[in-house]
Amino acid sequence: MIKELKVKTGRREELIDITHLVREAVAKSEVENGIVHLHVPHTTAAITINENADPDVKRDILYKLSKEIPQQDNYHHGEGNSDAHIKSSLIGPTLQLIISDSKLILGIWQGILFCEFDGPRARRLYLKIVAD
Amino acid sequence: MIKELKVKTGRREELIDITHLVREAVAKSEVENGIVHLHVPHTTAAITINENADPDVKRDILYKLSKEIPQQDNYHHGEGNSDAHIKSSLIGPTLQLIISDSKLILGIWQGILFCEFDGPRARRLYLKIVAD
Amino acid sequence: MIKELKVKTGRREELIDITHLVREAVAKSEVENGIVHLHVPHTTAAITINENADPDVKRDILYKLSKEIPQQDNYHHGEGNSDAHIKSSLIGPTLQLIISDSKLILGIWQGILFCEFDGPRARRLYLKIVAD
Repeated sequence: MIKELKVKTGRREELIDITHLVREAVAKSEVENGIVHLHVPHTTAAITINENADPDVKRDILYKLSKEIPQQDNYHHGEGNSDAHIKSSLIGPTLQLIISDSKLILGIWQGILFCEFDGPRARRLYLKIVAD
Repeated sequence: MIKELKVKTGRREELIDITHLVREAVAKSEVENGIVHLHVPHTTAAITINENADPDVKRDILYKLSKEIPQQDNYHHGEGNSDAHIKSSLIGPTLQLIISDSKLILGIWQGILFCEFDGPRARRLYLKIVAD
Repeated sequence: MIKELKVKTGRREELIDITHLVREAVAKSEVENGIVHLHVPHTTAAITINENADPDVKRDILYKLSKEIPQQDNYHHGEGNSDAHIKSSLIGPTLQLIISDSKLILGIWQGILFCEFDGPRARRLYLKIVAD
């Protein structure tokens, strides 16, 4: 079964912690052991895992990506968001995580981050849980 | 069961839409719900998802990757393709997608792109479908 | 079942071949066909696949990543390792590979590389094998 999560972004570029949404879906599924598959169905957004404790880590990721891949360059695509398409493929649109003993496995400092690169928009995230 | 797809590339750098190949494999499998695992067994190629409507998006991705990671730099590897190895790890060699109601799930604008960074070559792609 | 592998890194930045560790885990599992899920539970490390024959490929990947994403930049995070967090999300913390006929499927030149970006440290890697 596939579940659709909704993510509302508020700026052009933003890393939004969605760990709690994924944990809720895992809890509701009552799956004890398995895999959670996550898929961002957009071409100017992505999904990653990184530190969620100090907000400056998220700021630094976005700062550096935009410094190296600015919105203006010698791009041909006419919508002004080629930088967002490039960042989407560099970070990646899919992620898989392990469920063990009914818990979503993440490192102590790890959070799941929805990456908005061309917002603000109403975004979606597909989630599928496969039990062992 | 593992399936091997063949991808013929025509230039040194090229993003080739292979969505139809993956859709065909999903249709032939007759799997209604599950996961498609994709793996590029090369170290100078990769696989990603991005916009497949305007060809300029593919052009801009290759343009920017090559601008930032040119073929010549202070590399030590003697084959002249260190840039391709670096791009391969940045984009990534594996991808997983959801099959739901016998359909491969992709966003409206998303296509699956085989990324050639050191062609032209005869390339391969491993595909495995796991039913729920 | 989830297995924890240990990886000891010896430098600040290092790509360590862990293919043999994953192969051993696959052999011990006695799974004939399935998927191996790998997850690095750290936010300043990652996992990738690349050439493992010529060590210069690993050198070139680290060289270029550090040239473009140096340790010092206009970062706000106070721990001096923002570069490592950025590299972690660019390379990615998870990977999935196919097991077919009791073998881990990899291309001829491919090795699984644990990516240390803020070592030396005692690192971990989660591994879960799902049989078909």
